[in-house]
Amino acid sequence: MTEEIVVVPGDGIGREVVPAAREVLEAVGPDFEFTEAEAGDAVKEETGEALPDETRELAANADATLFGAAGDTAADVIIPLRRAVESFANVRPARAYPGVDAPNPETDLVFVRENTEGVYAGHESEIAPGVTTLTRVVTEDASEEIARYAFEYAENRGGDVTIAHKANVMRTTDGLFLDTAESVADEFDVAYDDALMDALAMHLVQRPDEYDVVLCPNLAGDVLSDLAAGLVGGLGLLPSANVGDERALFEPVHGTAPDIAGEGVANPSAAMLSAAMLLEYLGHDDAGERVRTAVTETLASGPTTPDLGGDATTRDVTDAVLSKL
Amino acid sequence: MTEEIVVVPGDGIGREVVPAAREVLEAVGPDFEFTEAEAGDAVKEETGEALPDETRELAANADATLFGAAGDTAADVIIPLRRAVESFANVRPARAYPGVDAPNPETDLVFVRENTEGVYAGHESEIAPGVTTLTRVVTEDASEEIARYAFEYAENRGGDVTIAHKANVMRTTDGLFLDTAESVADEFDVAYDDALMDALAMHLVQRPDEYDVVLCPNLAGDVLSDLAAGLVGGLGLLPSANVGDERALFEPVHGTAPDIAGEGVANPSAAMLSAAMLLEYLGHDDAGERVRTAVTETLASGPTTPDLGGDATTRDVTDAVLSKL
Ligand SMILES: CC(C)[C@H](C(=O)O)[C@@H](O)C(=O)O
Ligand SMILES: CC(C)[C@H](C(=O)O)[C@@H](O)C(=O)O
Repeated sequence: MTEEIVVVPGDGIGREVVPAAREVLEAVGPDFEFTEAEAGDAVKEETGEALPDETRELAANADATLFGAAGDTAADVIIPLRRAVESFANVRPARAYPGVDAPNPETDLVFVRENTEGVYAGHESEIAPGVTTLTRVVTEDASEEIARYAFEYAENRGGDVTIAHKANVMRTTDGLFLDTAESVADEFDVAYDDALMDALAMHLVQRPDEYDVVLCPNLAGDVLSDLAAGLVGGLGLLPSANVGDERALFEPVHGTAPDIAGEGVANPSAAMLSAAMLLEYLGHDDAGERVRTAVTETLASGPTTPDLGGDATTRDVTDAVLSKL
Repeated sequence: MTEEIVVVPGDGIGREVVPAAREVLEAVGPDFEFTEAEAGDAVKEETGEALPDETRELAANADATLFGAAGDTAADVIIPLRRAVESFANVRPARAYPGVDAPNPETDLVFVRENTEGVYAGHESEIAPGVTTLTRVVTEDASEEIARYAFEYAENRGGDVTIAHKANVMRTTDGLFLDTAESVADEFDVAYDDALMDALAMHLVQRPDEYDVVLCPNLAGDVLSDLAAGLVGGLGLLPSANVGDERALFEPVHGTAPDIAGEGVANPSAAMLSAAMLLEYLGHDDAGERVRTAVTETLASGPTTPDLGGDATTRDVTDAVLSKL
């Protein structure tokens, strides 16, 4: 059965790495039908809308969407796209690859970030001149769903779970997140612990190899996964999946990299690893594994792009990955 | 004129490092009158109150308070104590010391953290079964006060300022924080930039030497300063000042360290460096500098406690510091 894949390159290096990832998807061959769509700063400039309705609808109906990056309009694009695919889980693996400089080569983390609420629920107002509020929302339902996802993920991977939170200050909201996650934990035979997000930030810097799956409220996951990117060679290597029940959205964690956009030297690894997650989400596990292995081998043997100290182009790296598939 | 100093050792290693820091304060000799007071888990067990009224009142009336750490009751102690001294700024220097292993020896950061609002303003409720909210508060007044403090700090130190925020998501609240900080910046001849807190977490891990004073909303400062602790050898080295206009509270950033409490091997450096900040706050700049130099020299030459790979006791380190004053 043909699966519908929407491809949204976006701005900047998104326009370089997404086509590279698409080549890889085409090479491993499931019966995909690709549709290209626009989003980001450039389309906003033209049409006034960072996320055209057409793009949103395509994503809302496709089996999966591969997104690149957007510039200043990133939040206007990515948050509604996450909603369009009804994603509840943002999954961000951060691992050290052989050949890539990382302070701790044993680092192999997966952030499972709640993807619908927290401060991203976004009720803000200026309640008096110079006095603003934001209503952070945490529900039992969303906490339960993301916790179950994290524990299943850890079970499949044979790992353990760390529940990140700040329940000593946000007692009711993060208290609910933590209590709910602990109740879910009881259903699984998976080791787990909880950690204050501030202390966890320090421990991740010092001993990243001691952690495995990190279950996070939305903003904590945003910050801690970027921190982890710093530990494994930068955002050029971090893929992500915005998982929903029926469809999903895949994106490299990196942005548009305006300093190098257009030069053809962007690192396509994160986009390709996102494509591998897309394949696995759709049940093409072997194809996903082939892509991940080819990217990993290319990182180890070279060629590598300038962000990793090499002087290869996106094209060179793509050819190397394609030749290893 | 005698200055009144309240000393609150608290729980765990607070009871070891605060007396060590007090010895150092006594040795450098300003005319201080010390009063000891209790707070934390132990006093809660006895009296039902983690922060006895008497302790709060003492802190609210003293010139400065030196606090150690509290266990499970930390938030119940430290947040009201910060309020008692009417602190608006939480100042957390994080620097690499010669002799202490740090991935980047040029690291020399100062976090200036807003200390009154954000999620710590703490209005939470369960608005429906399983649905909880927290009202995050950001005001122009508090943002202006903390921004001015950060820019003055950077000006005195000949540094620059990075304004951390998440204004792409928290547009009204962090938008106000950022706009206000940028207006304040116009009054100073200090270089500055702003950074999304997630991207900043990554950049601090990769290139901490490129940053100087980091101005943060409350929770961002909590997380990013702990992250930085991981970059410079751990919490055993991080002092902090909770600065108010009339009085202030000084505390090592570390906690009670239950694993080593009572063994006499806690690292007293963070508490002593907090004492140095106390001295400077009260205008005893030379004495403060003497303490900082003695601690720095001791870190470089040893003896060092087990957290830094040595086998010295708190007593050994304290004697070494005292001998260098
Ligand atoms: C662009 C922004 C809204 C987004 C987020 O905060 O989720 C980004 O930082 C990310 O992590 O994907
Ligand atoms: C104990 C806790 C309330 C406190 C905070 O969040 O401010 C601590 O993490 C700190 O940084 O001093």
